[in-house]
Amino acid sequence: MMLQEYMEEQKKHIDARLKELLCTDVKAFETLYESMNYSLNGGGKRIRPILMLAVIEMLGKNPRPYLDMACALECVHTYSLIHDDLPAMDNDDYRRGNLTNHKVYGEGMAILAGDGLLTYAFELMASQKQIESSKIAAIISTFAQAAGPAGMVGGQAFDLESEGNMEIGIDGLKLLHKAKTGVIFKTAIDIAAILGDATQEERNALDDYALYMGLTFQITDDILDVVGDSHVLGKPVGSDEKNKKATYATIFSLEEARRLARQAAESASTSLKPFGDRARILKELVEYMLVRVN
Amino acid sequence: MMLQEYMEEQKKHIDARLKELLCTDVKAFETLYESMNYSLNGGGKRIRPILMLAVIEMLGKNPRPYLDMACALECVHTYSLIHDDLPAMDNDDYRRGNLTNHKVYGEGMAILAGDGLLTYAFELMASQKQIESSKIAAIISTFAQAAGPAGMVGGQAFDLESEGNMEIGIDGLKLLHKAKTGVIFKTAIDIAAILGDATQEERNALDDYALYMGLTFQITDDILDVVGDSHVLGKPVGSDEKNKKATYATIFSLEEARRLARQAAESASTSLKPFGDRARILKELVEYMLVRVN
Repeated sequence: MMLQEYMEEQKKHIDARLKELLCTDVKAFETLYESMNYSLNGGGKRIRPILMLAVIEMLGKNPRPYLDMACALECVHTYSLIHDDLPAMDNDDYRRGNLTNHKVYGEGMAILAGDGLLTYAFELMASQKQIESSKIAAIISTFAQAAGPAGMVGGQAFDLESEGNMEIGIDGLKLLHKAKTGVIFKTAIDIAAILGDATQEERNALDDYALYMGLTFQITDDILDVVGDSHVLGKPVGSDEKNKKATYATIFSLEEARRLARQAAESASTSLKPFGDRARILKELVEYMLVRVN
Repeated sequence: MMLQEYMEEQKKHIDARLKELLCTDVKAFETLYESMNYSLNGGGKRIRPILMLAVIEMLGKNPRPYLDMACALECVHTYSLIHDDLPAMDNDDYRRGNLTNHKVYGEGMAILAGDGLLTYAFELMASQKQIESSKIAAIISTFAQAAGPAGMVGGQAFDLESEGNMEIGIDGLKLLHKAKTGVIFKTAIDIAAILGDATQEERNALDDYALYMGLTFQITDDILDVVGDSHVLGKPVGSDEKNKKATYATIFSLEEARRLARQAAESASTSLKPFGDRARILKELVEYMLVRVN
């Protein structure tokens, strides 16, 4: 199967399951559920859950029983976007071509929609009866660490404090990327390694892949903010330069950023060597991240 | 031991442990950790974790190994207060006599402090190696359900939507109380029941206790907003009436609210009958909730 076909197939399952998950029969909670679903089903590419399922498959397991785990990952990703877009944070009006959550439901409800999605993700992870509970505890511990104050939330706090400060330099940029974006890609892969019973050698290879693949994604994201088409991206471009935000495309030249992205993608592919032919989809996925236009 | 002495003793352990938990050596994350600790160590009475530990003890187990579980509960309680106080929610400037989190650290950082505490609580719960992982999964599932969109977050959303609407009536009030406040008391007790291996009969008794004890707490809270001393409470009084908020003390007369609180406290005590003498601390705790002044 080609990558595009593979991604569409997985996305179909993920989208269908995400539509089923969050519903309520309590009238008083309806607006909250509507606002959570608005962002959750607002056209995400589902890269993180697809990545998780693809790694499980590469490890020789059927990924289907782990669909809800993948959906939990998307819930946490969506919560982070809703909170990032708030006026007190990045103050963005559009996301994926739609109005951001707080533009539709108001700030208070958007904060709660994020809180709800984050908490629900843990409920979903903890309730997977078909998975051994020792694995569930390990997954939640790994995941919460990655998404919490020492990971994604920390990265967002650093981002908030360093906005308008181009002086954070390449080390600051690396930390920011690692904590804010890379960490959830890495977690998607860590969870897959737990569920797929990866050996130590396989884990080491996956760690390298996660690092370079996340970097490829991030540099491309930074480049797209400069050269992307706002209609295709579904959000305005040029905001990083306007906000004097240190990114790979504002600290380096575009040419240099492109070279770094290409280098990261090659390192990502190389790290999958131990998996031989089984790595084809994941190699193509990193290529896709490099050439993506949205 | 008398209740007050018991509470002080437990609070000492909880306070000490909470002070140890959240620290970072990453300079870029320092403000975030400071803001989380500001609210976490801002003079909370620790009623929820004390309740959890007391129930475990009543069930005949040593509560000490479960101190971190109790601390996780306090982290989630603190997150909910930080987000509730935000300008987009209740817009409160003071909490426990101190400036609210966003008044000190700004709105963006306060949102992140809440996100960080919530996520960290799940990390803490999932990382308790001395607890069987089947219990950990059950606890996280129970807890996330209670704190999430069908519980506390839902209650807060309903509260947000119904502010200024006294028409929600007694049914709306009950739902609001159950979802917003009662649910975390109930969860503290549910977690204790799991950790303390409660029998079905014990669970039923504890369910009743949780219901009536939470109600006692809530009605007293509503009464204090009318007749409390703002210096002792550490926050302004009269805000419910000003915001036309439906509470037990604005829908009912003060006299009727006091009668309902007393009735709930008696039902809470009665429900502990199966535990005999071992229930003394928990009976005193509900009395304390009735007569508390802050």
